[in-house]
Amino acid sequence: MSKILSRRDLDFLLYEWLDVEALTGRERFADHSRDTFDAFLDVSAQIAERDFAPHNRRSDLEEPTFDGVRVSVIPEVAAALKVFNETGLLSATMDESVGGLQLPHVVARACFVWFQAANLATSSYSLLTAGNASLLLRYGSPAQIDRFVRPMLEGRFTGTMCLSEPQAGSALADVLTRAEPVGDGTYRINGSKMWISGGDHELTETIVHLVLARAAGAPAGVKGLSLFIVPKHHIEDDGTVGERNGVALAGLNHKMGYRGTTNAVLSFDDATGYLVGEEGKGLAYMFHMMNEARIGVGSGAVALGYTGYLHALDYARERTQGRPVADKDPAAPAVPIVRHPDVRRMLLASKAYVEGGLALILYASKLLDEPSDENDLLLDVLTPIVKAWPSQWCRLANDHAIQVHGGYGYTREYPVEQFYRDNRLNSIHEGTDGIQGLDLLGRKVIMRGGAGLQLLIGRIVTTAVAAPAELGQPVIALCDRLAATTRKLWAAGDPTSALANSTAYLEATGHLVIAWLWLSQLNAAAEKEGPFYDGKRLAARYFITHELPRIGPLLDLLDSGDTLLADLDDAVLG
Amino acid sequence: MSKILSRRDLDFLLYEWLDVEALTGRERFADHSRDTFDAFLDVSAQIAERDFAPHNRRSDLEEPTFDGVRVSVIPEVAAALKVFNETGLLSATMDESVGGLQLPHVVARACFVWFQAANLATSSYSLLTAGNASLLLRYGSPAQIDRFVRPMLEGRFTGTMCLSEPQAGSALADVLTRAEPVGDGTYRINGSKMWISGGDHELTETIVHLVLARAAGAPAGVKGLSLFIVPKHHIEDDGTVGERNGVALAGLNHKMGYRGTTNAVLSFDDATGYLVGEEGKGLAYMFHMMNEARIGVGSGAVALGYTGYLHALDYARERTQGRPVADKDPAAPAVPIVRHPDVRRMLLASKAYVEGGLALILYASKLLDEPSDENDLLLDVLTPIVKAWPSQWCRLANDHAIQVHGGYGYTREYPVEQFYRDNRLNSIHEGTDGIQGLDLLGRKVIMRGGAGLQLLIGRIVTTAVAAPAELGQPVIALCDRLAATTRKLWAAGDPTSALANSTAYLEATGHLVIAWLWLSQLNAAAEKEGPFYDGKRLAARYFITHELPRIGPLLDLLDSGDTLLADLDDAVLG
Repeated sequence: MSKILSRRDLDFLLYEWLDVEALTGRERFADHSRDTFDAFLDVSAQIAERDFAPHNRRSDLEEPTFDGVRVSVIPEVAAALKVFNETGLLSATMDESVGGLQLPHVVARACFVWFQAANLATSSYSLLTAGNASLLLRYGSPAQIDRFVRPMLEGRFTGTMCLSEPQAGSALADVLTRAEPVGDGTYRINGSKMWISGGDHELTETIVHLVLARAAGAPAGVKGLSLFIVPKHHIEDDGTVGERNGVALAGLNHKMGYRGTTNAVLSFDDATGYLVGEEGKGLAYMFHMMNEARIGVGSGAVALGYTGYLHALDYARERTQGRPVADKDPAAPAVPIVRHPDVRRMLLASKAYVEGGLALILYASKLLDEPSDENDLLLDVLTPIVKAWPSQWCRLANDHAIQVHGGYGYTREYPVEQFYRDNRLNSIHEGTDGIQGLDLLGRKVIMRGGAGLQLLIGRIVTTAVAAPAELGQPVIALCDRLAATTRKLWAAGDPTSALANSTAYLEATGHLVIAWLWLSQLNAAAEKEGPFYDGKRLAARYFITHELPRIGPLLDLLDSGDTLLADLDDAVLG
Repeated sequence: MSKILSRRDLDFLLYEWLDVEALTGRERFADHSRDTFDAFLDVSAQIAERDFAPHNRRSDLEEPTFDGVRVSVIPEVAAALKVFNETGLLSATMDESVGGLQLPHVVARACFVWFQAANLATSSYSLLTAGNASLLLRYGSPAQIDRFVRPMLEGRFTGTMCLSEPQAGSALADVLTRAEPVGDGTYRINGSKMWISGGDHELTETIVHLVLARAAGAPAGVKGLSLFIVPKHHIEDDGTVGERNGVALAGLNHKMGYRGTTNAVLSFDDATGYLVGEEGKGLAYMFHMMNEARIGVGSGAVALGYTGYLHALDYARERTQGRPVADKDPAAPAVPIVRHPDVRRMLLASKAYVEGGLALILYASKLLDEPSDENDLLLDVLTPIVKAWPSQWCRLANDHAIQVHGGYGYTREYPVEQFYRDNRLNSIHEGTDGIQGLDLLGRKVIMRGGAGLQLLIGRIVTTAVAAPAELGQPVIALCDRLAATTRKLWAAGDPTSALANSTAYLEATGHLVIAWLWLSQLNAAAEKEGPFYDGKRLAARYFITHELPRIGPLLDLLDSGDTLLADLDDAVLG
């Protein structure tokens, strides 16, 4: 059995639960079939196992270095990316007109999870490039697409997103990078960008940076931000790579985990930039891509949690230690630790987190495949949860994986400690958990008169009604509570008090969403027999009975109107 | 303000809350006074800051190495230990007759926390040695004390505890190391020991291992275990260090954190060992030391959480980013992030965890200073909580410290990521969290007819009655629930079902204990004015209103008699 990911689970989620095969009835996916989906899933599993997983530890131990001139990355990374590029998955969801495969997002996502689970750091170079290319396909000019996007999709260039700056991370309104029009249609870019994943390396001929900057004369705040293409090298009219542009690597950040992906501080010094779309719309363009980018982060968190769980399960079945508490005979042989209830607790909780998280990201991805007012709205509401929930709970699965391994899990001789370190980033980048809480409670559930929340709750209740009452009823009751709590929080229309406990709101809603997806899987498994389906039933029951009740106190807190945190005088800390 | 630990808080806890000065009325501490206590606290703070903290990062980046012959440790470690030894704190709590200071445990613990917070890895060498020496002072012969303990207390030798083996970690019943009497009173020791902290190095003349082994003809299980002194080198009759004994370093473990402390696999090959006390009592001797050792682990977890919190608080006051949610003016200056409610949530939660954890370990330490049937019993009940609660929650403070720092916190340029990695070990060594749950629910709360739990609840209720009713009443109600839940779990007398959710029981009881200690601090702060006392009041209120309610669902689960984990067929996992 693979310890990277479970193909059996993916097959269940894609075909038995989400009925992904039915997507082939849509014109966009008409050339596809379950056979082509399976072929891409097979090749992903194979390459992930053969070309990505084996150097995961090495890319942690021998992280990229910068000698002042060039960045060195272990050679396995470029080799793996080359194999990946040959699959065509870099443009998995893109139009055939640009060489894309027109795969459904949900299938592409299932493929990507294999690579993320096998080697998150190496896969990042490709997934960042795909995100960059998707944005330019949507908002770039035909000339920009020819010059920058096609080479990215051919694997000749990689791409980045340059948003943050040393003084502006969560608050993009404070971006200081400046763009001055030169007069020939290009801009001169000056400033400093921080936390740029894949920001420098020599894996490809050059790097296409997408840079958020403030054009001369633009207003303060996010409305003054525009988006620019700033290549590391100038690209000649014939498409060849020319001299260096004014982009310099100021330094690499040295992270706790996720070390194989370079993370750069970049200096833009009179660099030539090309405006994407219109001035002042930079953040809007970025936000149109944000749903997808945040699914990508949630997906990485799920992937790490999932592989950690499979490693822990395997270890727990092999490792013998101790006896059941009722067995007092010291001469009895030691049993596999999977027989101890507390080890089972960690394993079953992890299963509930990682399979629940995988269901969440696939469900969200499928919404991209069936665009409609309703599905777009639902995705908007779900996105902060898609991003934050796996970052928190699938990371807990990585924590459990260490604990199941005991002392061994704390050593670098086993992979689970790396998964734990790697996954810690996912609660930070692409909007911290705290930012997701503000997004959910401060925007998503109140926009359009609360239509998004109403839609979500409607879908949850429909599923819960079809589930066995003992598990469905508690979920329905919590839906009613969540709706009432939301109304109460916003009754006074005061954001300061409404948002005082936004993280509690995010956690409560997240757990309710996962409970819903477990009920939905339970319904899909109904009347099917065998250990796999029994496992789904057990995990659903576990999540509803052991995990979901934790949101009661969170909703109590929100209902109490507590503003202790908002009112706090921070002089009393310390 | 120090970012290692808060002297102000220690003064409050020791003098205003625990009235440690009154201990000088006891004969054992009659030579001490607040002045001598303060002098040791002062020197601890000073040395921790000057000699321990500066090489904390270096000992992580340049962890000890083994070239097959010798172990290399960065030179700052030996230098720091030398300064520490000169303080006399190595024998802080020991009798004057062996050169000890006869300090109260509670004061010594407060001193040790400084070193642990400044550099957990370096301080471990001393604290392990002190634990070893304490055991031998109690159970060793006068000749063993002269030969092995005195040089340890002089700083010439260090000491270890060798319990675990590759196949026996939590289950010491499965220890395979053998001891054969040679006929001259010594034993020949053969076997392999694992996870030995400080197990090899060249910081001192030699190392005194305390080894759990099975004497020839001894029964299976823990009753067949005896304890042996096995020095790395033979000690000549004149006390000088002679040839190597049959103890070899088989390898060093490479840990995720806590890297500065060597962690060894040791091979015992016809090594000469000296029996401590009587055959068959090895585990009993170890367990007599266990309360202290587990306070030491809890204390390390508190120390790391505490210093992480102080770093996060400092950063949150300096770092500007964004604006309050009600402020829509993008031209307004960015505010220190401590003004954002979600940052305050993480800081206040961390304060509640680390100050609550520090209160717990000091309270437990003071029980050692006032031995009585009642205090001994209370310490027995509290020990699993003292060990596990800080390992879980003060680690969460380290997690919050990273999150408060954002991307910076994830880099090795800031110290908080190391604290997070270092603290991960504390849930594993000296008995995992799962083992602590079994100890609490399976032994401690039912021994002597439940007298220990009754005693604990009595003390909690006494404190809660004296607190403001709005905070005291919920605690009293939960005490009643915990008593009822415990009775119900054990009503059938069946350990398998009673212990099915022992971790939930540990978490619930742990939070209730910390709520009690917060109420107790609240009472001690009553009618005192100023930001420090306001902070205590606020953290107490936060813990009772935001944190304590999470135990409701845990008690609900326990009351439901759920045996899902005990009954699980693990074939359904995966």
